[in-house]
Amino acid sequence: MAESYEQEPAIDHIKQLTEALDSGMFVHVRMMLNDMPPEDVAHLLESSPPRARNLLWKLVNVEREGDILNYLNDEIRNHFVDQMAPEQLAQALEGLEVDDLADILGELPESVYLEVMASMSDQDRHRIEAALIYPEDTAGGLMNIDTVTVRPKVTIDVVLRYLRMKGLPDSTDSIYVVDTQDRLLGAVSLATLITSRPESIVEEVFDGNVVTIVAGKSASEVAQLFERRDLLSAPVVDEENHLLGRITIDDVVDVIREEAEHSLMSMAGLDETDDTFAPVWSSAKRRAVWLGINLLTVLIAAQVIGLFEDTIKVLTALAILQPIVPSMGGVAGTQTLTLVIRGMSLGHIVSGNSRWLIMKEIGVSLINGVLWALCMAVLAWFWFSDNPHATTLSIAIAAAMLVNLMVGVFAGATLPMLLKKLNIDPALSGGVILTTITDVVGFFTLLGFATLFF
Amino acid sequence: MAESYEQEPAIDHIKQLTEALDSGMFVHVRMMLNDMPPEDVAHLLESSPPRARNLLWKLVNVEREGDILNYLNDEIRNHFVDQMAPEQLAQALEGLEVDDLADILGELPESVYLEVMASMSDQDRHRIEAALIYPEDTAGGLMNIDTVTVRPKVTIDVVLRYLRMKGLPDSTDSIYVVDTQDRLLGAVSLATLITSRPESIVEEVFDGNVVTIVAGKSASEVAQLFERRDLLSAPVVDEENHLLGRITIDDVVDVIREEAEHSLMSMAGLDETDDTFAPVWSSAKRRAVWLGINLLTVLIAAQVIGLFEDTIKVLTALAILQPIVPSMGGVAGTQTLTLVIRGMSLGHIVSGNSRWLIMKEIGVSLINGVLWALCMAVLAWFWFSDNPHATTLSIAIAAAMLVNLMVGVFAGATLPMLLKKLNIDPALSGGVILTTITDVVGFFTLLGFATLFF
Repeated sequence: MAESYEQEPAIDHIKQLTEALDSGMFVHVRMMLNDMPPEDVAHLLESSPPRARNLLWKLVNVEREGDILNYLNDEIRNHFVDQMAPEQLAQALEGLEVDDLADILGELPESVYLEVMASMSDQDRHRIEAALIYPEDTAGGLMNIDTVTVRPKVTIDVVLRYLRMKGLPDSTDSIYVVDTQDRLLGAVSLATLITSRPESIVEEVFDGNVVTIVAGKSASEVAQLFERRDLLSAPVVDEENHLLGRITIDDVVDVIREEAEHSLMSMAGLDETDDTFAPVWSSAKRRAVWLGINLLTVLIAAQVIGLFEDTIKVLTALAILQPIVPSMGGVAGTQTLTLVIRGMSLGHIVSGNSRWLIMKEIGVSLINGVLWALCMAVLAWFWFSDNPHATTLSIAIAAAMLVNLMVGVFAGATLPMLLKKLNIDPALSGGVILTTITDVVGFFTLLGFATLFF
Repeated sequence: MAESYEQEPAIDHIKQLTEALDSGMFVHVRMMLNDMPPEDVAHLLESSPPRARNLLWKLVNVEREGDILNYLNDEIRNHFVDQMAPEQLAQALEGLEVDDLADILGELPESVYLEVMASMSDQDRHRIEAALIYPEDTAGGLMNIDTVTVRPKVTIDVVLRYLRMKGLPDSTDSIYVVDTQDRLLGAVSLATLITSRPESIVEEVFDGNVVTIVAGKSASEVAQLFERRDLLSAPVVDEENHLLGRITIDDVVDVIREEAEHSLMSMAGLDETDDTFAPVWSSAKRRAVWLGINLLTVLIAAQVIGLFEDTIKVLTALAILQPIVPSMGGVAGTQTLTLVIRGMSLGHIVSGNSRWLIMKEIGVSLINGVLWALCMAVLAWFWFSDNPHATTLSIAIAAAMLVNLMVGVFAGATLPMLLKKLNIDPALSGGVILTTITDVVGFFTLLGFATLFF
C-alpha cells in the first residue's frame, strides 16, 4: 500500500515529542525519533528550543547522525559538530554523499578537519579532497562525482547489461557519453535508454546538446539555469570539457530557497541561515549590532532637526507633522528598493534596461508625490486652521512630501545598482542607507521650507 | 559536441536586441528571437520595458507563442493573452502540457475562455476541464495527467517492450503500479526498470512506500514535502487512492521560488507576481494604495504627538529626540517579525514551541532594551548638558526606549501568529501594524514620561 502523506506530520511530531520529553519518557522519544526519516528529525531539531534540541540529539542513534546532520541548517549543524569528538564525527559521516560531506567538513576548524580526515578511509579522503577544491557556492561545490559514463560506439543493449550488473547511483536520470580522454560528448537519459531499440548504438540516440556547467560557475547562476531550463540534472565539466561530476535538482532547490530568503532576511539585518530558536544571548548579541547601526543613522536625522530648533520653538505644530514626511519617503523608497533587489536577483535588471527603470520609478514617484502632497496640504490646512501659520505649514509639508518621495524612490532605484558595483550586498545595507536618506531629507525639507516661508 | 553554458547569455541578448530594435533591424531581431529557447525569450520579455516588450512579442513566430506564454510571469502573460483573439490563442496554446494550459485558461475572462475552449479539439477540451476542477494552488492544479501505469503481475521485460513501443512522456522518472480499479499500489523508477532482471515481476521490484499526494493538498505543502524529501516527482491521488496524475519537481521549483519571494514583496506592499517593468501608470496606482495606508497610520502617530504639544512648546529638545524611540522600536520589532514569518513559512513554528519563542524574544528585547536605554541616557545627558531639563530628557528617553523595544519585539513575535489565525496574510499587513504600534508607543512613552517627570 502506498503511504499517504499525512497533514503536516511535523506538527504532530513536535507536539507529541515535546510532551513525551517533558514527562521524561526518553525511551518512547528515542523510539519515535528513530522511526522518523532523517529529514523529519532535522526539521524537528530546527523547530525545537535549545534545551529540547540538545536532549533530542542525544537520543538519536549514532549511525543516523550523519544523515540528519546533512539535512540541518548550517548554524545548528555546526553547533552539534562542534560538540562531537573527531572519531565520532568521522563515524557519523560515513556513507554520506561526497558533496554533502564536503559541505560539512569545509566548515570545520583546521585541526578538527585534519583529525576527521585522518580517521577516514583512503578512498573517502581522496574523494573529499577532490570535492573541497571547489568553494561551496560554486558548481564544483554542489556537484556529486558519482557519474556513470559510456563510450559512443557501444550498443544500448551492452549499456543496459552493464547497468544491470553495476547498478545506478541515487537520483540518476542520465548517463554521460565521453571520449577516451574523458571529455564530455553528450548525455543519454534513462528514458532514452528504455525506449531505444537495444541494437542501436549510443551515438545514434544520445543528446549532444545537453546543457553543461563549468565547475567555477557560481551556485546562484547554476540555480537560475536549472530554474529557467527546468533541468533535473546537469553534467559539470572543467575548462577543457572533461567530465567532473553532476549536479542534481535536489541540491539546487536548497540554493533557490536560500537565495530567495537572503533578501528578506538581510533587509531586516538577519542572515538566511539564522536559527529561529537560537539561545537568547547569541540572538541578543547579533541584533544589538543592527540596532546600533540604526541608532547611529537616526541620530544623524535628529541632528538635522536640531538645526531648526528655533523654528520649532515658535511653531510647535511642526513637531506634530514631523514624522509624516520621512515615513512616506521611506515607504515609497523601500517599495522601489525591494522591486529592484528582486529584479536584480532574478537577472531581469541589466545595464541595458536600468535607465528606463530609473526613469519609470521617477515617473511613479512624481505621480504619487503630487497626489499625496496635495492631500497633505489640504489636510494640514484644515487640521491647523486655528493656527496663524496654517498656510506656511500647508505649503511646507506639501513641498517636503513631493521632494522626499522623489528622493526616496530615486535612491531606492539607484542604490542597489551602485552598491552592487561596490561589491556591497544591497539587501543588507540598502534599506539602512535608504531610510537614513529619507529621514534626513524629510526632516530637512519640512523644517527648511517652514523656516523659509515663515 | 556538448554546448557549454555561456556567461549570463541573457545580458548579451538584452543588449544586442535592444540595440537592434533601436536601429530598426527587425529582420535581424526576428531571427535572433526565434533562435532562442522559449524560456530565454520569456526572460527577455520580462526584462524589457513595455514598448520594446510589445515590439518583441510581435516579432515572435506564432507557433512559438504558446511555449513562451508558459514561461512568462502571470502579469505579463495576461497582458499578452488579453490582446489575442480567441482562435489565435487556441492555436498558440496547442501542444502545451495540460497543467500549463489550465494555468493560462483559468485566468481568462469567462467569455474568452468559452471561445478558446470551443476552438479546441474534443480531447484537449476534456483534459483541460478535468484539470480545471482543482484550484491552481493545490496539488491537483500542479499535476500533469500523463502518467504511465502498469499492473503488478507483469514482468519487467513486458514493461520494457511496452515502453519501447509507446514511448515515455517528458520528465518521467517513475511509472506507477495500479490495480484494476486504478488504485495506486506503488511506483517503479526508471532506474529500477533498467537495473532489474528482465524476468522479474513488477510486484517484486516496485516501491510500495512511495510518497503520494492527495489532490486537495495546498501547493505550499506540496513544495515543503518535495523540498524536505528531495523528491523528483510524486503521484497524485484522490481520497480513495485512485491515481489522478503526477507532480514533477520543475513545477514545484516555481512554487518554492514564489513562496519565498512572497514574504519579501508583501512586506513592502508588493506582490510576488509584480512586473518590474510595468508601465508608469499601473505601478503608480498600485503603490498609491500602500502609501495611502501608510499615511493613515502615521497620521495616528502624529495625533499622539499632538496630545503633548504643550510639553514640546516648553521643552523643544523633545522634538529633536522624537524620531529615535519609534525608529529603534520599529527596527527591533521588524527583526522579530521577519524571523517569525520566515519560521512560519518553513513550518518551524507551531503551537508547541511558540510560547518558548515569544519568551525568548522578550528576553532578547530586554537585553537590548537595557543596553540601548543606558547608551541613550548617557548620550542625551551630554548632548543637552546646557539644558536645565537634561535629567528629565535623559530619563524619559531611556525609559521610552526600553518600553518601546520590548513592545515592538513582543508585537513582532505575536502579530504573525495572531494574523494567521484571523486568516490575514502576516507578511502583507504585519509590518504596517507593527510600525503603527511602535510609532504610537514610541511617541507616547517619550513625551508621556517627559511630561510626567517635568
